[in-house]
Amino acid sequence: MVPHLVTALTGPINELEQRILDSTPAIERWFRLEWMEHTPPFYTAVDIRNAGFKLAPVHTNLFPGGWNNLTQQMLPLAVQAAQAAIEKICPEARNLLVIPQNHSTNTFYLANIAQLVRIFHMAGLNVRVGSIDPAIKSPKKIELPNGDTVTLEPVVRTKRRLGIKNFDPCTILLNNDLAAGTPGILEDLHEQYLLPPVHAGWSVRRKSNHLRSYEELSKRFGKLLGIDPWLINPMSTRAEGVNVADGRGIDVLTSHVDAMLTKVRRKYKEYGINEKPFVVVKSDTGSNSMPAITVRDVKEVEALTRKSRAKAGGAAQGVGADEVVIQEGVLTNERVHDGVAEPVVYMMDRYVVGGFYRVHAERSSDESLKSPGASFVPLAFSDSAHLPQHGAKPGASAPNRFYMYGVIGRLAMVAASYELEATDPDAEVYE
Amino acid sequence: MVPHLVTALTGPINELEQRILDSTPAIERWFRLEWMEHTPPFYTAVDIRNAGFKLAPVHTNLFPGGWNNLTQQMLPLAVQAAQAAIEKICPEARNLLVIPQNHSTNTFYLANIAQLVRIFHMAGLNVRVGSIDPAIKSPKKIELPNGDTVTLEPVVRTKRRLGIKNFDPCTILLNNDLAAGTPGILEDLHEQYLLPPVHAGWSVRRKSNHLRSYEELSKRFGKLLGIDPWLINPMSTRAEGVNVADGRGIDVLTSHVDAMLTKVRRKYKEYGINEKPFVVVKSDTGSNSMPAITVRDVKEVEALTRKSRAKAGGAAQGVGADEVVIQEGVLTNERVHDGVAEPVVYMMDRYVVGGFYRVHAERSSDESLKSPGASFVPLAFSDSAHLPQHGAKPGASAPNRFYMYGVIGRLAMVAASYELEATDPDAEVYE
Repeated sequence: MVPHLVTALTGPINELEQRILDSTPAIERWFRLEWMEHTPPFYTAVDIRNAGFKLAPVHTNLFPGGWNNLTQQMLPLAVQAAQAAIEKICPEARNLLVIPQNHSTNTFYLANIAQLVRIFHMAGLNVRVGSIDPAIKSPKKIELPNGDTVTLEPVVRTKRRLGIKNFDPCTILLNNDLAAGTPGILEDLHEQYLLPPVHAGWSVRRKSNHLRSYEELSKRFGKLLGIDPWLINPMSTRAEGVNVADGRGIDVLTSHVDAMLTKVRRKYKEYGINEKPFVVVKSDTGSNSMPAITVRDVKEVEALTRKSRAKAGGAAQGVGADEVVIQEGVLTNERVHDGVAEPVVYMMDRYVVGGFYRVHAERSSDESLKSPGASFVPLAFSDSAHLPQHGAKPGASAPNRFYMYGVIGRLAMVAASYELEATDPDAEVYE
Repeated sequence: MVPHLVTALTGPINELEQRILDSTPAIERWFRLEWMEHTPPFYTAVDIRNAGFKLAPVHTNLFPGGWNNLTQQMLPLAVQAAQAAIEKICPEARNLLVIPQNHSTNTFYLANIAQLVRIFHMAGLNVRVGSIDPAIKSPKKIELPNGDTVTLEPVVRTKRRLGIKNFDPCTILLNNDLAAGTPGILEDLHEQYLLPPVHAGWSVRRKSNHLRSYEELSKRFGKLLGIDPWLINPMSTRAEGVNVADGRGIDVLTSHVDAMLTKVRRKYKEYGINEKPFVVVKSDTGSNSMPAITVRDVKEVEALTRKSRAKAGGAAQGVGADEVVIQEGVLTNERVHDGVAEPVVYMMDRYVVGGFYRVHAERSSDESLKSPGASFVPLAFSDSAHLPQHGAKPGASAPNRFYMYGVIGRLAMVAASYELEATDPDAEVYE
């Protein structure tokens, strides 16, 4: 079910990976049964870190950009998956409206929008791009460096429907993470499908909810594989009233960091892992309100706030978040062109359709790679999927090293599905 | 929804093709709505003939071989489609048993079986090959020229289930068209899925049923496109008690051929088509009981039987079928390496996953290409799907010339779905 993509890692297959490869039929069956009971998010991208001894998702994006970073070869897969999603959700659909991020003059981001338009156009829909950015007052055609063109048109809201001039969509695809809040224009749409739902937006979503869902699932999945769930789950806690910028609640943060480092140290000792534990502190809300900060020692926490305050000129601005997540850090031991790399798995509906490596030459293996200077290396399809591997069972194919990433990516997607069910404001509750 | 494959035809887009391309959103929606009401065959291959002025399916195979003739690039699409099919039909499946044709020592055919095993293995199932050929009494491992290996194992029947030693499948995939009749071993399986159902086998199926379903659908589809359904439908009639080999019922055949040639001539005149009409006479049953015979003139019918009798040494053997179909012949104007070619569209569940050209250098454009000497040229994915075409609307992609084949292939698949519903012996009838 996971396409065979060429990964950077080529070393020997370790115990965890072998366990995942050997359990393929059980794993695929497990996912099939999950999707009988639960609805996958419309599309999902998951950042994954592979420490070798441990493999875990570190970020689950429900409004993925970066579709332009996938290879052209993945296009047919994405189109087929898009068709499956449309068939299930809105078979009678004719017109699709894509809503991009606001203030999006970034041509890389717009190339992502052009790619989404292409995917849904090839899936057989009329597709147009409607901006909810108040600055867009008339159609704006933008030529992109890759030869693509995107036309942003202002949305038009009527009493019950959202569209653009002369275009009444039955389905609206959000590629806007609503971090700034859900605009009224998206509310009370009674006769249109809005995908993903607004409660998947960052103004409502909490990373801690997702991590809790994922932790529960990793326990069940660990049982299926016969492994310690820690091997696929990054531990985490949550703290409120913390602000790195102005130093508020720093004692709370310090004690959380200390406790988490101790827990990680204990696990490393249990498994004989000779690495330095670290934690990552990030905002529980929004995707950009505070960059993820790596903390290797509890002493660093206070230094962090001082540094932060100095940077901000003493004022309580810059990085800051009242609700934070303190997460076990997961090393990444993949390298692409000597740069530290982490795979990002792209899914449409239930299907893994492609992936790329996020690479950062100036970051170390315990730091977030999501920062200026990151580049993207698409994962190519393996053409040798049909070649029997030397020493393998006759008739066997070369192992798909991307498979485990596809499994962990989908596990995070199932967690997002549980998370969205639990936070659905319109959920029917049977008591 | 139809992958962009590179076709042999590169000339200008004619009116029919343009109509199909322009109607893409309406066509895709039409298919989505059909699949809400009807179940697609598990897998389907459709032979298509493109005369330029007319485009029609000429054979719909519900037990397709030839999966090995598709490119490796189509593997991910086929795997994803297989997964979708399994999810829908038997999500709880673990083990899949593939049943090949009997007497299959042909390594091309076995390479097809190896490819099917690969597809369903990659979709996450345990797959083994169980032969219902009584000659297979113990596991037989066959090495194929391409490096693949197939192990044929004898099936074991218990009271309620079919399997092989130490392998109890929940799902059985037939790649055996049951032309020789449905063996008892496949009957009364109450706790296993048998796909496709036995009534899709050639001992039950009639081409005329399929053609009638297709004709009905072509009328509805023609309305959708605003075209004469004849442009996508090969006219046909059916005759009983006809045997080309011994000359029985040859007067009936002659009158049918005459009437059909007249009907085609009238249509050609209506459209100003300057081609010689012809009809194809073929068995209504089985796929191999009688080769398709091209008849260009009613006088040829009697000559045919004389020739046939001479060939068979005067005895009433060789080609022969009591029930025959007299079908309007459709020219193919595609050429690959100077050979006459016709596209074959491969589908898994609702999805077009690939195709190839059947090419025959020694046949003319009004003859069947299904005969010794035919070769297969896989259709590659177009890598230029994202390149805007010169003179095209900005943002538009190069037209997918394979699209119309995918549409007609799927239309024949919908017809097969109707056909299987109508002939289902277990259908619940509500009166």
